Amino acid sequence: MIRFENDYTEGTHKQILKRLIETNEEQTPGYGTDEHCKNARAYIRSECDAENADVHFLVGGTQTNTTIIASILRPYQGVISAITGHIEGHETGAIEATGHKVLTLPSDDGKIQAAQVKELNDAHWNDDAHEHTVQPGLVYISNPTENGTTYSKAELEELSNVCRECNLPLMMDGARLGYGLASIGNDLSLADIAKLCDVFYIGGTKIGALFGEAVVIVNDDLKKDFRYMIKQKGGLLAKGRLLGIQFETLFEDGLYYEISKHAVEMSIMIRDAFVEKGFSLRYDSMSNQQFPILPDDVIMELNKKYTNSFWEKVDDTHSVVRFCTSWATKKEHVEMLVEDITALDI
Amino acid sequence: MIRFENDYTEGTHKQILKRLIETNEEQTPGYGTDEHCKNARAYIRSECDAENADVHFLVGGTQTNTTIIASILRPYQGVISAITGHIEGHETGAIEATGHKVLTLPSDDGKIQAAQVKELNDAHWNDDAHEHTVQPGLVYISNPTENGTTYSKAELEELSNVCRECNLPLMMDGARLGYGLASIGNDLSLADIAKLCDVFYIGGTKIGALFGEAVVIVNDDLKKDFRYMIKQKGGLLAKGRLLGIQFETLFEDGLYYEISKHAVEMSIMIRDAFVEKGFSLRYDSMSNQQFPILPDDVIMELNKKYTNSFWEKVDDTHSVVRFCTSWATKKEHVEMLVEDITALDI
Amino acid sequence: MIRFENDYTEGTHKQILKRLIETNEEQTPGYGTDEHCKNARAYIRSECDAENADVHFLVGGTQTNTTIIASILRPYQGVISAITGHIEGHETGAIEATGHKVLTLPSDDGKIQAAQVKELNDAHWNDDAHEHTVQPGLVYISNPTENGTTYSKAELEELSNVCRECNLPLMMDGARLGYGLASIGNDLSLADIAKLCDVFYIGGTKIGALFGEAVVIVNDDLKKDFRYMIKQKGGLLAKGRLLGIQFETLFEDGLYYEISKHAVEMSIMIRDAFVEKGFSLRYDSMSNQQFPILPDDVIMELNKKYTNSFWEKVDDTHSVVRFCTSWATKKEHVEMLVEDITALDI
Amino acid sequence: MIRFENDYTEGTHKQILKRLIETNEEQTPGYGTDEHCKNARAYIRSECDAENADVHFLVGGTQTNTTIIASILRPYQGVISAITGHIEGHETGAIEATGHKVLTLPSDDGKIQAAQVKELNDAHWNDDAHEHTVQPGLVYISNPTENGTTYSKAELEELSNVCRECNLPLMMDGARLGYGLASIGNDLSLADIAKLCDVFYIGGTKIGALFGEAVVIVNDDLKKDFRYMIKQKGGLLAKGRLLGIQFETLFEDGLYYEISKHAVEMSIMIRDAFVEKGFSLRYDSMSNQQFPILPDDVIMELNKKYTNSFWEKVDDTHSVVRFCTSWATKKEHVEMLVEDITALDI
Repeated sequence: MIRFENDYTEGTHKQILKRLIETNEEQTPGYGTDEHCKNARAYIRSECDAENADVHFLVGGTQTNTTIIASILRPYQGVISAITGHIEGHETGAIEATGHKVLTLPSDDGKIQAAQVKELNDAHWNDDAHEHTVQPGLVYISNPTENGTTYSKAELEELSNVCRECNLPLMMDGARLGYGLASIGNDLSLADIAKLCDVFYIGGTKIGALFGEAVVIVNDDLKKDFRYMIKQKGGLLAKGRLLGIQFETLFEDGLYYEISKHAVEMSIMIRDAFVEKGFSLRYDSMSNQQFPILPDDVIMELNKKYTNSFWEKVDDTHSVVRFCTSWATKKEHVEMLVEDITALDI
Repeated sequence: MIRFENDYTEGTHKQILKRLIETNEEQTPGYGTDEHCKNARAYIRSECDAENADVHFLVGGTQTNTTIIASILRPYQGVISAITGHIEGHETGAIEATGHKVLTLPSDDGKIQAAQVKELNDAHWNDDAHEHTVQPGLVYISNPTENGTTYSKAELEELSNVCRECNLPLMMDGARLGYGLASIGNDLSLADIAKLCDVFYIGGTKIGALFGEAVVIVNDDLKKDFRYMIKQKGGLLAKGRLLGIQFETLFEDGLYYEISKHAVEMSIMIRDAFVEKGFSLRYDSMSNQQFPILPDDVIMELNKKYTNSFWEKVDDTHSVVRFCTSWATKKEHVEMLVEDITALDI
Repeated sequence: MIRFENDYTEGTHKQILKRLIETNEEQTPGYGTDEHCKNARAYIRSECDAENADVHFLVGGTQTNTTIIASILRPYQGVISAITGHIEGHETGAIEATGHKVLTLPSDDGKIQAAQVKELNDAHWNDDAHEHTVQPGLVYISNPTENGTTYSKAELEELSNVCRECNLPLMMDGARLGYGLASIGNDLSLADIAKLCDVFYIGGTKIGALFGEAVVIVNDDLKKDFRYMIKQKGGLLAKGRLLGIQFETLFEDGLYYEISKHAVEMSIMIRDAFVEKGFSLRYDSMSNQQFPILPDDVIMELNKKYTNSFWEKVDDTHSVVRFCTSWATKKEHVEMLVEDITALDI
Repeated sequence: MIRFENDYTEGTHKQILKRLIETNEEQTPGYGTDEHCKNARAYIRSECDAENADVHFLVGGTQTNTTIIASILRPYQGVISAITGHIEGHETGAIEATGHKVLTLPSDDGKIQAAQVKELNDAHWNDDAHEHTVQPGLVYISNPTENGTTYSKAELEELSNVCRECNLPLMMDGARLGYGLASIGNDLSLADIAKLCDVFYIGGTKIGALFGEAVVIVNDDLKKDFRYMIKQKGGLLAKGRLLGIQFETLFEDGLYYEISKHAVEMSIMIRDAFVEKGFSLRYDSMSNQQFPILPDDVIMELNKKYTNSFWEKVDDTHSVVRFCTSWATKKEHVEMLVEDITALDI
């Protein structure tokens, strides 16, 4: 079985593995105070053109979202998110478990618009009884989104402006950030993101690392005591150097971008195959996830050789499924899939 | 200014006031362990035909909702509610503050249907990755709803059946329960509710009392240690006898029903006046709240003499406002309002 | 049975009852936005010589402690308290339920010393791994304490100085504050307290009111959005005017002080009787609670006529019990008790 | 510098590293549903002689403690722990952040006695106002303790009996469990622990793995929905197979025991050196941590070559420091340390 069900089916990139082997017997202090973490922080700050940013390393995405959001909000505040956001629907209520409501905005493609944020915020403050409702305290976006779509620089600037006007910090979930930066047509850089967001993270788990997410806190007001939050939420890895080593390797020489680019190229091959065969796509994704709308018997046929994720029913005979590529996706596997799509008898 | 903005603008019913005066110098033990609470519990159990029910007295609605819901749910569970439910939009995230998500169902009139509950519950359990999402753990309804509508006996039976089939306790927020029982066409009794719900509460704050909500726990599984929950959530009134005295008075001789009936009669007079004048109603309420859709200049005209609550904008020149009546509403005030509505120059 | 078990065995002071009767039919807006609350706030500000203080009214003590503390602390901070503090041992973990640890200091008499606070705070910050431990974020004291003892002005000044030096807000639980102000030898005024504390509350439940605690927020940094916190924690009373009316009555003309003084006089009569009979006192209380150490058979004898609270076992044949007086304690009852103590055959 | 400051200064055991390399390109499903996790679960169940136990893999200790404890307790319950317990003092209030109080018992050596648990539990239930206090809901012990001491089989049996009598689940924090099993004089096996505890975990982070803790839930009542808890608390590793691979390697052939034994041998060499030199030990540890009481100038001398952890001041000139060994400790380093201790000029 060839796996396209998600972007974390393999271990780690060979260069990272090599570095883990080389450093395995080193003795280091714990909890992210080692030299590798220091180096990784420096590389990331430099890449983000944000010399004053605080950089922290956590293990996984849910943990990272929870820790950031809980560190920012006051008890009666909520986080604004697309209804499709990972924090709203796929983290078992982790945000609510820290006491906070997710204030959802409708979205068909995973993105939210600046005007939606403004409207929700204004509605709150224009309500005479606003203290009877949850106060908006933060805006959460993911880029690329859960649907593979990405924000353009213009869109992110507009969001950022509205957020600053509304006094709402802007947070970007970058669990797949590399794939967003590598997506076709992307005009955002890490430095842009660092300028436009207050806090964001650079995903490693799905992009080459065994695990790991690098949190970049740009806004000074959000920096204080963040390590207490990481520890309390169970995210302070004892052997923190493992995170340092991985992000060092990903960022010392452009590996992160390079492997992201590969994943997107593989993804576009799959996209093109489906489109050429005449299938529609549920979302217009130029990153590493593709969401074709397929007849259920086609899905069954493909499932014999390729895992993918069921996404949603469209009608009695059609469904959307998700094909993910990653840094580890083998070109011969994609070629085989493309061939099989092309050969489908429909 | 004559107030129709809500149903808690006055103090308490004169019979309750009389009893508070008579008992003022009595010495009683605290925290609801006194004779008045004991009597009130007996009256309520009898009225609900539920001799084994546990009855607890709390001070206000938000506190009561939070305490009940937090006592039932496991940490990863959420409560299903209409999107219009009080817990979703008007309690400053009190439910989330105890760690739980509100799982919303769309609703135009404040009610939810059995089929909606079943669909949401099935969708959760049919999801292969269900542990990545919040598990439904409880169904919350309000009766009458925040929109003045009420559940028929058939509807409540259907909901109750689905809930039992899905192993979901059913909770009724009865902050205005008396007005629901007195609403035109209602075919539900307290005994029916006690049979069909697992836990519910009988509102006093809005129906004759200075304050107070009587929680009735019918399902044995939900009874354990509820007093710990009340205390922890700040709802265990030191002078608990105040709650006992008030509910004793409301239930020893039918006062609760009688004063609820009055409020509904006053409400229907207002409803009829708006309808006869040709105005539409946003919701078809037969209880103590009316939601006419009015031209904004009519609202401004009425606002000169009568307070009401702004509900929502309909278009550039029309809005919905809410007129509430209560046990304390004076007939002459309603007659004056009706006269003024009838005389409107439109 | 004559009750000395606590200070909330009766209803309310007759002047408050009178005002509740007089105002019962008034129509007011809800949630503390009425004129009575406005007046009460003004009286309290004036009495505290703190014209810029925010004053809020809540229903009960546990609710008030929880709301204040949760509004101040960041998620990883805890509140410093004497191990005897009400929040540590008698509120069913209400503070922890909002996510915060109570950092306890040893205390034999219910009070804590400035040096203890300083030592705990320094120990935290001197620990290299301080982010692995709960950060002190607030100091909680009660005055009078749960043991009837009180802080002198010098002691409170010293605490206040240390707190400011450590950047820790100082909060006073004043559930029995009137009895503290009236205690023999007290040299603190409300104005002193407002100068030395950042936030405190003036208890009504135990001093003349049916219920109610008046929170005074002096420190500007702690004022923001407090009404959201009250609502979320279930403490925003719908008929807020009830709180306004009660505190209006207590503070418009010195009633609060006068009835507190009576309670303390009654308490000292009881104290003197025990001491003259040769019994020791567990705590040196000059306020409204007395804690004699008595032979168990004496306790059984007194229990035939007078309720009191069991406090703790001292040895196989002796225990401490608590006798409380209050604004409502009748002098003839105290005289009867004194007589019975004096006549004890020991 | 040679590091004895903790037991997580190196990467992972070479056999684990080998297996990570071999399996790196395998494609597996995520979140612990892969074959490696399945195998590891089988090995652990077999080792524990607990075929029906549920076995889950988490990343780190704080996360594991929080997830287990929050999954068991009802909102008003607390966890009983030695005051020296990791959850009480070194996890930044993680337990409180899930809403629960830690109910501490005094302990000089890190252990608690059955009689202490019984006394605390009885005191709660004998209190007439028990619902005003936190209900004991679980007993937490660590073995070996934070002080290196261990429970004998007889002690654990006694604790287990009291817990079952009191209806309190017993949980063992086994972050260093291997070192406990290998400690000199230990008479407990994993099978004993599985029989006597309701839930426990087998630490990997400190014993050969890069990271990872294996939770064993023996009591059927505690098994339900645990994966929801892991996900919500951020502990469900995307590439769960990493945990499976590591525990497979540790348990397929006794590696866990073997490397634990090495660490303890190294520790005893250090212990003996200090004792022979005439120094006292703060705790009588036969596992992998040693706590000598040393003159401060000796500590400064040793610090030139060897890191260790400051534990506590004893007097003006003496302190306790902790020396940790681990699976990775090199014998030549220990021999060098022993030599330097022996050569100390005191």
